[in-house]
Amino acid sequence: MNLLEDLYFLIGTDKVTINETLLRHHSGDESHHPKIEPDAVVFPESTEDVQKIVSYANEHQIAIVPYGAGSGLEGQAIPIKKGISINFERMDQILEVRPEDLTVKVQPGVTRHRLNDELKKYGLFFPVDPGADASIGGMAATNASGTLAVRYGVMRDQILNMEVVLADGRVIKTGSLARKSSSGYHLNGLFVGSEGTLGVFTEITLKLHGIPEYITAARCTFPSVRSCVDAAAAILTAGISIARVELVDARSIKQVNDFSGTNYPEEHSLFLEFHGNKSGNEEDIDFVQAIVEEAGCTGFVFETDSIKRANLWKARHELHYAFSHGFPKLSILSTDVCVPISKLPEIVEFTRNQLDGLGLDGGVLGHVGDGNFHATVLYDRNDPEQVKKMQQLNEELVAYALRVGGTCTGEHGVGIGKMKFQEQEHGAALDVMIALKNTLDPNNILNPGKVLPIEMKVY
Amino acid sequence: MNLLEDLYFLIGTDKVTINETLLRHHSGDESHHPKIEPDAVVFPESTEDVQKIVSYANEHQIAIVPYGAGSGLEGQAIPIKKGISINFERMDQILEVRPEDLTVKVQPGVTRHRLNDELKKYGLFFPVDPGADASIGGMAATNASGTLAVRYGVMRDQILNMEVVLADGRVIKTGSLARKSSSGYHLNGLFVGSEGTLGVFTEITLKLHGIPEYITAARCTFPSVRSCVDAAAAILTAGISIARVELVDARSIKQVNDFSGTNYPEEHSLFLEFHGNKSGNEEDIDFVQAIVEEAGCTGFVFETDSIKRANLWKARHELHYAFSHGFPKLSILSTDVCVPISKLPEIVEFTRNQLDGLGLDGGVLGHVGDGNFHATVLYDRNDPEQVKKMQQLNEELVAYALRVGGTCTGEHGVGIGKMKFQEQEHGAALDVMIALKNTLDPNNILNPGKVLPIEMKVY
Repeated sequence: MNLLEDLYFLIGTDKVTINETLLRHHSGDESHHPKIEPDAVVFPESTEDVQKIVSYANEHQIAIVPYGAGSGLEGQAIPIKKGISINFERMDQILEVRPEDLTVKVQPGVTRHRLNDELKKYGLFFPVDPGADASIGGMAATNASGTLAVRYGVMRDQILNMEVVLADGRVIKTGSLARKSSSGYHLNGLFVGSEGTLGVFTEITLKLHGIPEYITAARCTFPSVRSCVDAAAAILTAGISIARVELVDARSIKQVNDFSGTNYPEEHSLFLEFHGNKSGNEEDIDFVQAIVEEAGCTGFVFETDSIKRANLWKARHELHYAFSHGFPKLSILSTDVCVPISKLPEIVEFTRNQLDGLGLDGGVLGHVGDGNFHATVLYDRNDPEQVKKMQQLNEELVAYALRVGGTCTGEHGVGIGKMKFQEQEHGAALDVMIALKNTLDPNNILNPGKVLPIEMKVY
Repeated sequence: MNLLEDLYFLIGTDKVTINETLLRHHSGDESHHPKIEPDAVVFPESTEDVQKIVSYANEHQIAIVPYGAGSGLEGQAIPIKKGISINFERMDQILEVRPEDLTVKVQPGVTRHRLNDELKKYGLFFPVDPGADASIGGMAATNASGTLAVRYGVMRDQILNMEVVLADGRVIKTGSLARKSSSGYHLNGLFVGSEGTLGVFTEITLKLHGIPEYITAARCTFPSVRSCVDAAAAILTAGISIARVELVDARSIKQVNDFSGTNYPEEHSLFLEFHGNKSGNEEDIDFVQAIVEEAGCTGFVFETDSIKRANLWKARHELHYAFSHGFPKLSILSTDVCVPISKLPEIVEFTRNQLDGLGLDGGVLGHVGDGNFHATVLYDRNDPEQVKKMQQLNEELVAYALRVGGTCTGEHGVGIGKMKFQEQEHGAALDVMIALKNTLDPNNILNPGKVLPIEMKVY
C-alpha cells in the first residue's frame, strides 16, 4: 500500500499533499497538547471525495481526523494515530439561506464570521460565538457554545439536519428541515459533539434568529469574583431574559486593556447584554441595576452605542489571544468545567484562590449564566514544576465540578485532555458510549484516541 | 415458566396483577390504534424493582412496555407483543426541587399539572404542555411538546439528566446537573424520544424557568386558515419573541364553545401569548397588531385578565377532549406533521380542502410557530369507507410534509402509526437507528413493534 499514490488515484493529485509545512500545520491546534503530524493531508471538494477517503481508510484501517479552522482547545484535530487529516477549507460554501424558514445550509468549512456577514443581508444571525473564528463543522463536532448560549442555546440546539459520512462510506442525513420532530432516534444530538469519532460531517443545516430589534450592553464592577457570580445568579433566578452575562476578572481586564488598547477599569466585572425591544430592555435594565447594586456592584455603565458595544464583545472574545500574544513564550491551559449555577460562586472563588496559592498567573472568566467558566492559566511548558501545578489545578477543578454534579467540559469538548475524566463523569454510561462507537466505527478509524478511552487498533 | 409467580417472587405480590379490568385498562391509550392486553401489569416502587422486572424479561425474552398516564396518541403504551406493562403510578415523587439551580428531579410517574402545582411555590414553572395531563416519563419517551415550544423548546431541550434501566438491567445516568456539556456522547438526546425502545426511565432531571414577570394574551380572527398562518409566519420572521402562537380554525372554535361553554367568535383564529415585562410586552403587541392587520385580521382582542387568559389556554388544551366527548361514538385521528415554516400556509390550506373534499368532519389546529399542526379528524371506525378516507388523509399529509423537508411527527411520536413512514423519512439513517437499537436491546424486549420497523423476536 502506498498511501499517497492511492489518495492521488482516488481523489486527484491536487487534493492531496505531504508537503512538510502543511503536515506541520495540521499537527496541532490552539491547545497545549503535543503536536503530531499526519501522514497526509487531503482537501476534499465534495461529499463524494469524503466518501472515497473514508471508505479507503476504513478498508485499510487508517486513522482519519477532520480539520476545520484549527482553533480547538483540547487537541481534537491532532492526528495522534497519524493517518489522514481531512481539511475542509475547500468545502466552505453557504449552500442555501432560507430566510422565511430561519435556516441556512452550509458546508463544514464555513467559518462563523463569514456566515454572519452573509446573514446580515437578511436581518438574521447565527448566535453561537466561541472565542475563535471557528468553522461550523468544528463547532458542531465539539458542541461549541459561547457568550450567547444563555439565551439562544449551544451548537446542538441550532442543528436541524446534517449530512454525515459514516465509517464505511455510507451517507446519511440526521434530521430534517422541521423545527421539531419526534420521529425516530435523535441522530442530530448523537453526532453533534461526537468530535469526528462517529462520522464525518459534509453538510450542516442550522436554525437562525432574527437580529433583535434593540440591543443594550452594560458593564458592572464588583469588589470580588464571588460578588460578580452572586449577582449573575441573582439575575438568572429573577427570570430576566438576558442574552449575555459574562464574568471577566480583574487580571483578565488588565490583559484586555494591554492587548486591545481599551481602558476598562481593572476590576472584577460582569459584561451584560439584553436583546429585545427598547422599552422592554429599559425595564429589564432597571431591574438588573437594582439586583447588582444589592450584590455590591461598585460601578454600572451602559454601552448603548453600537460601536462601543461591538468593541466590548470583541475584547471579550479575544481574551484567549490577549493572553497568548501577551506571553508568546508561555503556554496556556484553558479549563472548562461547568457546574450547577448555585455552585458557581464557590468554585470560581476556589479557582482564584488556587491560582494565587499555586503562584500561577492567569485570569478567570466565563459564561456564568450557564455555570461554565474558564481559568486561563499561563505556564512554561519547559518548567516541570509549572506543568505539574497547571495539571494539578485542572484536575482539582474537574474533581470539584464532578463532586457537585457538573461536567468536566462545558464547551471545549473532550478531545485528548478530558478523556481521562470520562469514566468518573459517566460511570456505566461510558460503556454505552463505547458500544455505540463500536457499532458505528468497528475499525476505530474515526478520530481514534479521542473522547472515549478505548483500545486503539489502527495502523 | 409461570410469569405471574415469577413476578410475585421478584417484586412482591402487591406490585403485580392480572386482574381483567386492569389488563383492559393497560390495553390502549387515547389513540385510534386497536387495544391489546398485556399478560401482566406491574407497579414498581423503585429503580431496583424496575431492574428486576427488566432483567427477568430480558432473560426470558418477554416484551415490556412502560405505561405512564395512558394519554399517548400513537399507541406507544399498547403491548402489541403482550408481555409486561410497567405502570409508573407508584413512582410519582417529586424528588428534589433546586430553585437556585432552576432544576427539579422527578420520578417518571409525576404528571405535568402536579409538577407545576408544586413549582408555583418557588415562582418557577415547567413549560412543556401537551394537551393531556401526561406523565413526565411519557413526555420524555415521546419527546412531547405543546403550545410553549416556540419559546421554551420541546421536552428534549428540558432534560439535563435521566436515570435509565437498560435492557440487561444495568442502570446508567445520561447527563449531569450542568446546564451545558460537551462531555461524551449526548445520551440525553438519544434516550429522549426513544419511546421505551432503548431503556426504561426511572428518574428525570428537568430544567425549569422563572414564571414571567408579565404575561399578555391575545386572540385575533381571520377570514381564512391561510391568512392565520401567513400572519403567524410574519410575526416569527419579524424576530418578535413570542411565547405562544396557536392556530384554531372555525370548526375547532365551535367545538370549544360547545364543550367549554365559551363564546369565542366562530372564526379562524390565532391565540397568542407574550412573556416578558409590562413595557416590553406592550411594545411587542403594538408591533404584532400592525403585522396581523396587514395580514387581514378582522378582530384583535386582548386577554389581560389572568382568569380569562387561563380559560383561553384551558379551552385550547382541551380541544382533543372537546371533539372526543362531543362525538362519543366516533373515533379521532390526530395528524401531527411538522414542516418548514414557509410551507405551513400551503399545507394547512391543503388539509382544510382535503377534509372538506373527503367529507370528513374535523378541525385544524396547531403550534404554527414551529410549523407543527394537527387535523383532528372524526370518523366512524365501523364504516370502512370513512376509515379509508381517514387513512388517505393521514398518508397524504405525511407525503406532503416529507416532500417539503418536514417530518411525519412533530410531537406525538412514532409509536405504531408512524412506523411505516420511517424508511421514507430517514432513508439510510434508519439502518443506523436499527443498529443502535440492536446494540442496546439485542433481544428486542423493550417496547417491541414500536418506532422502528424491525423483526420481532419476542415470545
